[in-house]
Amino acid sequence: MLSFAVTHTDGAARRGILTLPHGRVDTPQFMPVGTAGSVRAIAPDDLERVGAQMVLGNTYHLLLRPGPELVAEMGGLHRFMSWPRPILTDSGGFQVYSLAEQRKISEEGALFRSHLDGSQHLLTPERAVEVQQKLGPDILMCFDECPPANASRAEHEEAVARTTRWAMRCHAEWKKDPKGSLFGIVQGGLQRDLRERHAAEIAALEFEGNALGGFSVGEHPEQMWDGVAHAGPLLPRGKPRYLMGVGTPEDLLRCVLNGIDLFDCVLPTRVARNGLLFTRQGRLQIKAARYAKDQRPADAECRCYTCTTFTRAYLRHLFNAQELLAFRLNSLHNLAFYMDLMTGMRAAIETGTAQTYADAALEAFRRGPD
Amino acid sequence: MLSFAVTHTDGAARRGILTLPHGRVDTPQFMPVGTAGSVRAIAPDDLERVGAQMVLGNTYHLLLRPGPELVAEMGGLHRFMSWPRPILTDSGGFQVYSLAEQRKISEEGALFRSHLDGSQHLLTPERAVEVQQKLGPDILMCFDECPPANASRAEHEEAVARTTRWAMRCHAEWKKDPKGSLFGIVQGGLQRDLRERHAAEIAALEFEGNALGGFSVGEHPEQMWDGVAHAGPLLPRGKPRYLMGVGTPEDLLRCVLNGIDLFDCVLPTRVARNGLLFTRQGRLQIKAARYAKDQRPADAECRCYTCTTFTRAYLRHLFNAQELLAFRLNSLHNLAFYMDLMTGMRAAIETGTAQTYADAALEAFRRGPD
Repeated sequence: MLSFAVTHTDGAARRGILTLPHGRVDTPQFMPVGTAGSVRAIAPDDLERVGAQMVLGNTYHLLLRPGPELVAEMGGLHRFMSWPRPILTDSGGFQVYSLAEQRKISEEGALFRSHLDGSQHLLTPERAVEVQQKLGPDILMCFDECPPANASRAEHEEAVARTTRWAMRCHAEWKKDPKGSLFGIVQGGLQRDLRERHAAEIAALEFEGNALGGFSVGEHPEQMWDGVAHAGPLLPRGKPRYLMGVGTPEDLLRCVLNGIDLFDCVLPTRVARNGLLFTRQGRLQIKAARYAKDQRPADAECRCYTCTTFTRAYLRHLFNAQELLAFRLNSLHNLAFYMDLMTGMRAAIETGTAQTYADAALEAFRRGPD
Repeated sequence: MLSFAVTHTDGAARRGILTLPHGRVDTPQFMPVGTAGSVRAIAPDDLERVGAQMVLGNTYHLLLRPGPELVAEMGGLHRFMSWPRPILTDSGGFQVYSLAEQRKISEEGALFRSHLDGSQHLLTPERAVEVQQKLGPDILMCFDECPPANASRAEHEEAVARTTRWAMRCHAEWKKDPKGSLFGIVQGGLQRDLRERHAAEIAALEFEGNALGGFSVGEHPEQMWDGVAHAGPLLPRGKPRYLMGVGTPEDLLRCVLNGIDLFDCVLPTRVARNGLLFTRQGRLQIKAARYAKDQRPADAECRCYTCTTFTRAYLRHLFNAQELLAFRLNSLHNLAFYMDLMTGMRAAIETGTAQTYADAALEAFRRGPD
């Protein structure tokens, strides 16, 4: 279903081309998160503008509303949300752990109540694959168990073992009608031996791509970076490597250097709605009084609609007045920033300067916007 | 400051071209309302897309936040909100009556407290002109007194007399540094003799354009249409005629037929945020269960981004999930609908078919969307 070619390497970092049913994805790539069938405040026209190539859809949210059967009847998620390019859906597992109420996990799957209306749902490995196939993404994910960062060794061992068993059930279900490409997920927390064992187990199942789950779940950034530096290279070299739910610009730079090809995170759009703008000089809190009369764009080097059209003073006013337009303009910029960052990393890998590029970008971030 | 040419008439209806410092406005024209320096949920790119030629800025809102001095320092409202085309500002009077707290009206002006932070402000005719000139619109409005529909005859007489005295003070203040074009406002409620007397008084002051205030303040639509049918033609023929704060699609069609050139109203964007979409077949409540699997656009004849890209099923999902994107897409469509309606009326006036066009549109609205 997919083809993946690594065209350049630079240390552990890889530049690749991922070809999917709905188009080409240049890796490393960041996927904006379209939680409930839309990237919050951002329509497909803005996604095109910022150069997004692939978005993520949340199975948990779409399962609860409007429901996978409706999306399927409407021609699948691409048609439903009018996004013609590639889509990856997660399995819903992470949101069951973080959002759902009264959840009970058993070998069969996860029984939980909707955070929206209290309705009861059972998500099993088989149902997670079935739901995703109704959504019709280019890539779907195995249903996994994702313990928090402070889970015990025993809990991690149990999660790893169960995630493998569930991966086999997902694979068997997907095999019945293999639409889309199914990716496996490696758990194990910060336990290196568990990560190694689990990476080998998941690799043996020969998914078309592999992911690292269980990072950015409460551990310190340095711990996560170390964990990914160790676990990233454990994933099969010839297949896409996806780090789930990560992260900050710093996270992306560091993890690309450790061989990650795909990322997703709500961070750029979520913090945008709270008035935080990423710039090449670091984080800018647009509500700060110092920007009240600042005629400069949020980021002078950014070519996005927000930065080429509006001043910091205006963006500050919109945010302070809680104008709806603030959410769109801030989100648009932060996504453009992420896309530019990844474009920069891809170009740097091609020229063998990934470490230099990342070091310079990290140094500039630390400076802080003037 | 402005030039205005009526190029066609059709009964009382007029087709004209209004030329302002920031560009040309084809009349009859509808102005989207940019309350606090932005048309809610709509950026200038969307305004361009729907063909908006002129927007309204609310002096009351901008006075309170971010303040006229800041807007002036930022180069005026056009630059602040990145809208290069014409802007009209109201005087703030209407919001003082409808939004402000603890207001005291005297001959000097209106003393009130901000609905945002309780801060005290005095808006006099002179200050209203000063504030508007700091915002720097193409057209500014006199500070008037606008009684509610159920006001007594005596209250209307008092408001008319005071509005004339205040109009003279506005004019004197504006004359000191005549930037922008100052428009007079005719009050008088539904009292025909008061409207006639006041129209003559305001005409005598020779403003560059004239407005009808005090409509759509609680009276029945039929009363308003009758009132405008009477009062519209009282305004000087060679100057633009502006009906303030109106209205529904039905209002626009009927009032264009009675010689109105300019309209503004929050209605299309406000109801959009509540899930009401205007279509050529009438009002569509997007949350209705009957649209859950409706693959059609909101309005099959509409060429806006929303209608050419998304289905009713998707718009319903976005609205039910209260996704921020719903506010933009719905608002964009309703503004496009209003713009198309006015484009249709202008074309009809040119061919002497205004009444036929309006009758057909009104008949189609009554049908209701299928």
